[in-house]
Amino acid sequence: MPFDLDPYLSARRQLVEDALAARLTALDETPAALLEAMRYSLLGGGKRLRPILALAACEAVGAPAERALDAACALEFIHTYSLIHDDLPAMDDDDFRRGRPTLHKAVGEAMAILAGDALLTEAFRVAAARRGVDPAGTAEVLFELARAAGAEGMVGGQALDVAATLGRPTLEELERLHRKKTGDLLLCAVRAGARVGGASEVQLASLTTYGRALGLAFQIVDDVLDVTADLATLGKDPGSDREAGKTTFVDLLGVDGARRRAAEVMDAGLLALGPLGAAAEPLRALARYTVDRDR
Amino acid sequence: MPFDLDPYLSARRQLVEDALAARLTALDETPAALLEAMRYSLLGGGKRLRPILALAACEAVGAPAERALDAACALEFIHTYSLIHDDLPAMDDDDFRRGRPTLHKAVGEAMAILAGDALLTEAFRVAAARRGVDPAGTAEVLFELARAAGAEGMVGGQALDVAATLGRPTLEELERLHRKKTGDLLLCAVRAGARVGGASEVQLASLTTYGRALGLAFQIVDDVLDVTADLATLGKDPGSDREAGKTTFVDLLGVDGARRRAAEVMDAGLLALGPLGAAAEPLRALARYTVDRDR
Repeated sequence: MPFDLDPYLSARRQLVEDALAARLTALDETPAALLEAMRYSLLGGGKRLRPILALAACEAVGAPAERALDAACALEFIHTYSLIHDDLPAMDDDDFRRGRPTLHKAVGEAMAILAGDALLTEAFRVAAARRGVDPAGTAEVLFELARAAGAEGMVGGQALDVAATLGRPTLEELERLHRKKTGDLLLCAVRAGARVGGASEVQLASLTTYGRALGLAFQIVDDVLDVTADLATLGKDPGSDREAGKTTFVDLLGVDGARRRAAEVMDAGLLALGPLGAAAEPLRALARYTVDRDR
Repeated sequence: MPFDLDPYLSARRQLVEDALAARLTALDETPAALLEAMRYSLLGGGKRLRPILALAACEAVGAPAERALDAACALEFIHTYSLIHDDLPAMDDDDFRRGRPTLHKAVGEAMAILAGDALLTEAFRVAAARRGVDPAGTAEVLFELARAAGAEGMVGGQALDVAATLGRPTLEELERLHRKKTGDLLLCAVRAGARVGGASEVQLASLTTYGRALGLAFQIVDDVLDVTADLATLGKDPGSDREAGKTTFVDLLGVDGARRRAAEVMDAGLLALGPLGAAAEPLRALARYTVDRDR
C-alpha cells in the first residue's frame, strides 16, 4: 500500500503551526507592534516545507518527530524572514505574498525590516533552546543553520541574484545561485532533523544526497510554476522573476525540459534513501510532492 | 599605580581587528560584492567596545582574553549589522557613519540590507564555532546572544524607537527603550565573556550588575554627545536624533543632569566589581572611558 501523504502532512503541519505560535507567544517582552508584524508573516500560511522536512528526516532515522520541533521552527523563522526582506522595495519590490499584502505593504518598511531581523535572530534562540537535544548536537545544528542561511548560503544566493539580473548565467551558474539561495536551507532542514534524531554518519550522508537533490528540484519547479501558474494559485505575482530580468531554468531548458530535469534530479536523490527503508516513506512522498506541486 | 587603559585598549583592539578580519576571510565562498560590503562596514573602524568588554570580562574571572574571541567577534558582527540596518532610508536615513558614507550610500540599499542580514547570521556561526569552549557553554552564550539582539532586546528597542517618535516618553520608558536598544547587548558582552571564561554564578551576578549599569550610562552619554559634539569628532551627523523628533535623556534631564545621572549609574555598577579585585581593573577603566569619552 503506498504511503498516504495527505494525513501525514496535515498532522505534521499542525505540530508545526502549534509550535510556531507557542514560540511567538513566549516572546512576551516584545513590543506589541513588532510582535504583530512577526505574527502576520510567520503565521500567515505557507507550505511549512522546511520544518516538515526536518520532522520527516528525524523520523527517518527512527526518532519521534517532536524532537526536531525546535530546529523545525528555527528553519521556518529563517525562511519567513528571508521572504520579508526579499519582498522589500529595494529588493524584489513585491506587493503580494501568500495572497495577502506583503509585510511592508501592511505595516511599513521600517517595521518590516525589523520584523525580519527579529525572526532571523530568534531563529537561533529557538535552535539554542536544547529541549531534549544534547549540547554538542545543538551547537552543530546552530553552526550548520547559520552556514546555510548566511553569506556563503542563502544571503549569498540573494546577492548573486541581485547581480545576476545584469547578465545571462550558464546552467552551472544558475544551479550554484539556487543551491545557495534555496538549496542550502532545504538541505539543512533534512540534516538538522536527522542530526537531532541521532542519525549515524552513514545515514547523514544518504540524507545529504537526498536533501541536495530536493533543493535543486524544488527551485526548478518554482521556475516552471512562475511561468505556468496564475496569481490565485500561486498567491504571489506570477512572472515576477521574468519581469525582473532574471534568468530562470525555464529560459535555459524550456518548460518541458525543466520539468524533466527536476524529475531526473529527484530520482537520483531518492535512490540514496534506499538503506533507510520504510521509515523514509514520508521523505519519498515529500519529494514527489515537491516535484508535482502546483504552487 | 592606576591602571593604564591606553596600552590595554591598543592591544585588545589589535586582537579584535585581527580576529574579525580572519573570520571574514574564512567566508571564502561568499560572492565578492557581498563580502566587500560586509568588510566595508565591519572593518571600517569603530571603538570595538562590545568585543573588548567581552575580553575584559573573560580576564576579570581569570581566563585568557583569547578564549572570548569568538564571542567577541559575534558581538561586533551583530553591532555592525544593527548600524547598517539602522542607517537605511526607511529607518534613520543617515548618510554618514564613522566619517564615511553609510553602507547603502556606498553600495546601494539592496546590498546593504543583505550585508546586514549576512553579518547577523554569521555572528551565530562564529559564536557556534566552539574553539576551546565546552558545548553547553556555547549553547548558553548563543541563547543569551540571540535574546539580547532579538525581539525582546535590541530589535525590540529599535521598534520602540520607531514608535517613540510619536510621543514623549517618561524617564522610565526611555530607560526601558535604551536597555533593549543598546543596554542588553552591552550586558551580553560582559556576561558572554565571563561565561566562556568560566565565571562562577556569584561572579556572573556581579558582572551582570556592572554590565547593566554600563549599558545605561553608555546611552546617556551618547545622548549628551549627540548635543555637544560636532561631525568631525563624532563621525556621524550630530543632532540627528533630535532632528528625528526622538526624546533623549538630555531632553528629560538637561546636559549637566544627564552627565550626573550617567556618573551615578556607573558608580553603582562599579561597586559590584569589588569582589573581583585587581583582575577587574580593565573593566573599571572601561567604565570610566565610557562615561568620559568624547565620541
